[in-house]
Amino acid sequence: MERQHFQQELESLKERLLAMGGLAEERVRTAILGLVERDPDLIDEALNGDMPLNELHIEIDDLCLKLLALHSPMAADLRAIMAAIKINSDLERVGDMAVNIAEAARRYASHPPVKKLIDIPRMANTAQRMLRDALDSYVRGDMQLAQHVLDEDDDLDSLKTQVFRELLTYMLSDPSTIEPALDLILISRHLERIGDHATNVAEDVIFMVSGRDVRHHAADQQT
Amino acid sequence: MERQHFQQELESLKERLLAMGGLAEERVRTAILGLVERDPDLIDEALNGDMPLNELHIEIDDLCLKLLALHSPMAADLRAIMAAIKINSDLERVGDMAVNIAEAARRYASHPPVKKLIDIPRMANTAQRMLRDALDSYVRGDMQLAQHVLDEDDDLDSLKTQVFRELLTYMLSDPSTIEPALDLILISRHLERIGDHATNVAEDVIFMVSGRDVRHHAADQQT
Repeated sequence: MERQHFQQELESLKERLLAMGGLAEERVRTAILGLVERDPDLIDEALNGDMPLNELHIEIDDLCLKLLALHSPMAADLRAIMAAIKINSDLERVGDMAVNIAEAARRYASHPPVKKLIDIPRMANTAQRMLRDALDSYVRGDMQLAQHVLDEDDDLDSLKTQVFRELLTYMLSDPSTIEPALDLILISRHLERIGDHATNVAEDVIFMVSGRDVRHHAADQQT
Repeated sequence: MERQHFQQELESLKERLLAMGGLAEERVRTAILGLVERDPDLIDEALNGDMPLNELHIEIDDLCLKLLALHSPMAADLRAIMAAIKINSDLERVGDMAVNIAEAARRYASHPPVKKLIDIPRMANTAQRMLRDALDSYVRGDMQLAQHVLDEDDDLDSLKTQVFRELLTYMLSDPSTIEPALDLILISRHLERIGDHATNVAEDVIFMVSGRDVRHHAADQQT
């Protein structure tokens, strides 16, 4: 009965993490759409929408504390909650990245556009997919999917390098593009960081699924 | 006896976190010194020194798991371990920032210097001090010191804006400075992120010290 109750609470924790991931992803999408469409309303929406994310962040931390305090979970269950604590922090910071992107998008919209944006929305799609896959791998305990997220990070990295080289060419040939191009470079770095957060989540999943048995480890230390 | 043993282990956890903070800080210092002195050996040292940090990161995570599994801590003790899990992640990422700084410093050294570096070493000093203060506030449970770290983040932010404006002026007036100035801007952003990590640690400390009593909270939920 106790065990069943714990499993229910753990499922509810996973649902909240998925909900938080959805909110964070939505916010990144809004910021990038605001950038591409040069739409001040969308940019404002991304800048000001952190209330639900902050509330979920606190709720999830509380839920983790409660699960640890009430059930004293062991081994895989304990690692799942430890992973949730870390994933929660990563998702909160993805929300922060959406704010940084929206701030740069607002500055970018005050200059004539440097170029048609193709690679940056592509980077955003990759980063968002990585985040979604990483969370799915957590919920399902799917190590293969987690490994796939780590591989996708290389795509994001090549896109970032490509974006940087192209924008540098613009800046060198036309100084009037320097300021807006700089903002695009910063946005590409924020997207790279979202990929880093997805990578962190995937690494936590790999540890959670494959980790040594804590009780066994602890027993060794007790003697 | 059990309680005393737990407190010893918690002290040892705090010592390991301080050691990890020291290593991370040292690595940032090496990267910035490599940048200022244009010294390839120091830059290499910052690029390749992640082994001890990675080992400590795993060791601290294991210690947290062990403390949770063996002692089922409650309330403030539980919050202290939850904070340690998060702080451990933040410190690992400060190490990653040192690598990013060293990579940019290596590129920067391949161009003639843009200017005498004054504000970037100042930013580095502020970020390192914030990190040190944040860890001290954790070890001592000192909320005032944690609050002080949050205030210092404003200084770092104004330095970042100042660095950005000055470098933009160089880029606009002399296109040959565009590439190296971009690297300095990226370095200032990495230093800003180190400040963000210190801020995260300080916020964890404030939650740890002032947080609601988990058992009380849990008891409410149980009825």
